[in-house]
Amino acid sequence: MEVKGHPYRAVWMDGELLCMIDQRALPFSFEVIKSHDYRATCEAIRNMTVRGAGTIGATAGYAMAQAATVPEITPEKFSLARREIELTRPTARDLCYATARVFNVASVLLEAGKAAEAARAAMHEAATIAGDYVTHAALIGEHGKVLIRDGAQILTHCNAGWLALVDYGSALSPVFRAHQEGKKIHVWVDETRPRNQGAKLTAWELSGAGIPHTVIADNAAAWMMARGLVDMLITGADRIASNGDVANKIGTLEKAIAAKAFHIPFYVAAPLSTVDKDCPDGNSIPIEDRNPEELTHITGIGDQGVPVSIRIGNPGSRAVNPAFDITPAAYVTAYICETGVYHSVTEMLKEKPM
Amino acid sequence: MEVKGHPYRAVWMDGELLCMIDQRALPFSFEVIKSHDYRATCEAIRNMTVRGAGTIGATAGYAMAQAATVPEITPEKFSLARREIELTRPTARDLCYATARVFNVASVLLEAGKAAEAARAAMHEAATIAGDYVTHAALIGEHGKVLIRDGAQILTHCNAGWLALVDYGSALSPVFRAHQEGKKIHVWVDETRPRNQGAKLTAWELSGAGIPHTVIADNAAAWMMARGLVDMLITGADRIASNGDVANKIGTLEKAIAAKAFHIPFYVAAPLSTVDKDCPDGNSIPIEDRNPEELTHITGIGDQGVPVSIRIGNPGSRAVNPAFDITPAAYVTAYICETGVYHSVTEMLKEKPM
Repeated sequence: MEVKGHPYRAVWMDGELLCMIDQRALPFSFEVIKSHDYRATCEAIRNMTVRGAGTIGATAGYAMAQAATVPEITPEKFSLARREIELTRPTARDLCYATARVFNVASVLLEAGKAAEAARAAMHEAATIAGDYVTHAALIGEHGKVLIRDGAQILTHCNAGWLALVDYGSALSPVFRAHQEGKKIHVWVDETRPRNQGAKLTAWELSGAGIPHTVIADNAAAWMMARGLVDMLITGADRIASNGDVANKIGTLEKAIAAKAFHIPFYVAAPLSTVDKDCPDGNSIPIEDRNPEELTHITGIGDQGVPVSIRIGNPGSRAVNPAFDITPAAYVTAYICETGVYHSVTEMLKEKPM
Repeated sequence: MEVKGHPYRAVWMDGELLCMIDQRALPFSFEVIKSHDYRATCEAIRNMTVRGAGTIGATAGYAMAQAATVPEITPEKFSLARREIELTRPTARDLCYATARVFNVASVLLEAGKAAEAARAAMHEAATIAGDYVTHAALIGEHGKVLIRDGAQILTHCNAGWLALVDYGSALSPVFRAHQEGKKIHVWVDETRPRNQGAKLTAWELSGAGIPHTVIADNAAAWMMARGLVDMLITGADRIASNGDVANKIGTLEKAIAAKAFHIPFYVAAPLSTVDKDCPDGNSIPIEDRNPEELTHITGIGDQGVPVSIRIGNPGSRAVNPAFDITPAAYVTAYICETGVYHSVTEMLKEKPM
């Protein structure tokens, strides 16, 4: 997508440097962070310079490629690097999907003592993964846009736009396409506490695309539904179990329950790479607990126009910060992926669209 | 309740001065704001120096008493002052309940030309109203505590503690009592965006009382329920319609819907003065829209230990900020008021407890 007239992806290679849009700095400042080794890339995933299922996946693929270029790399070191990369974030399925793809093409070459070829093959595979995400995101937009009627009021939670899926997005890809085709739409943007990816990233993306939108407190979502102001709920996913249970940003469950109560359809948009076939249901998905300071402290822009971090909670009180929740499949109206729209993950895996 | 060993109410008279704990400054600083005329008191209600249904009511009662002491007060000026006080906040039922009580005792005296007697009667009535709130809050604690079992995990939203009801509280009064009686309880405190009354005020009150509690993002409430970590939801109310629909802090509806989905009881604790008998249902309750800056900007404590206000949302994006929502009566398990616990408002008004 374009930023100030220039096309960008959330993550890309510039020669030997991995470039990532710093999503922590948005919307106040547009900065590109560069990494020249896999450990720095791991840190960028961990500290959420990059975030969002597909963007984490693509970045992890590139991190694997960087690991393959480490001098005197051995199959053992490569395996250890893979593990290190996979441990950066526990919930995102795409992370392990991408590391496995790069590992599979490079490790045989490494074991055969062909380190240079392994490095080339790894980088080629990483670039292919990123390209696949872009293709899949575009297809999600094509399949999903038909679900959005002219005049639709759409609620989304967190950021599942182009920043989260290398380009176009998962939940927002159909929204961008519907808007491009001239449909008059309006998006309710959940603030998405505690990291405010809605108010910060989704609002910034929609502003950039010229799509009418309004930021609301997470608490206001059900009230907008009750007042008949929401026609559909659409989110991305961090991992989808084989029974259709969805791990996504904390609060998705609450919105999905409210949507069901008001008979509002809830669509989950994600590439097939987000489906974890080995995971029977939501109970088996690891949920990341993040630092409670994400809740008790917040960073924004002060009077001087520079970032300021402040404490906003009661100093003596404990806080917990689960980063994701599990929405049971029963709450999902349909899944949108690169091959179509499906009532269930079973049908999605068999490619039997609605 | 006690603050640093001293007993306090949220609002009280000190000679001719109305004293109010500044709830905007908590939890970082404990400050008392003093007002010597009804216009300053109106501003304190409007700018949320004081907030919470009963505390707004008590303060409005005192504001009426202050209006009655204006030199050369006439029945017409007194009526105008009443209207001015009632317009400070639109949703809180107790505001008009209190203004009506003071008006009814003072206006007849004013019309009879007995200004000094009117002023004395008005102040006496205002003090009685505040005292009634304290009595009712204590009784809510007595009736509600039996609903809290030893070991209970309680979810609350916003602040319905002693700051919100002059003393003891509505939702928190049973919690304080259960704790005093030695029950081991734990409270999940919703942050309560956008003004964070949970993370700021409820957490501060519970800390002060030594009650174990944990602050969570509003988004995490349903997830705590899904994991079996919530035994009951209890909130206050800003206005209760005669059919039992409840206006309360934005997000209450979302928590109530989630509670129902997980078969968790939802209790609404409020004095009878919060019931608006003339209001047939939730559709008739005016909902206050507050400044969107409450959502896009936030104040906390910076590195230097002083309050700092920062922007946290995307600068180009619109935001809306409804302060309350309506939870249909069907989601309420029971109402706790000063006369008992009731399945419905109809039974509450007939005083037929559960």
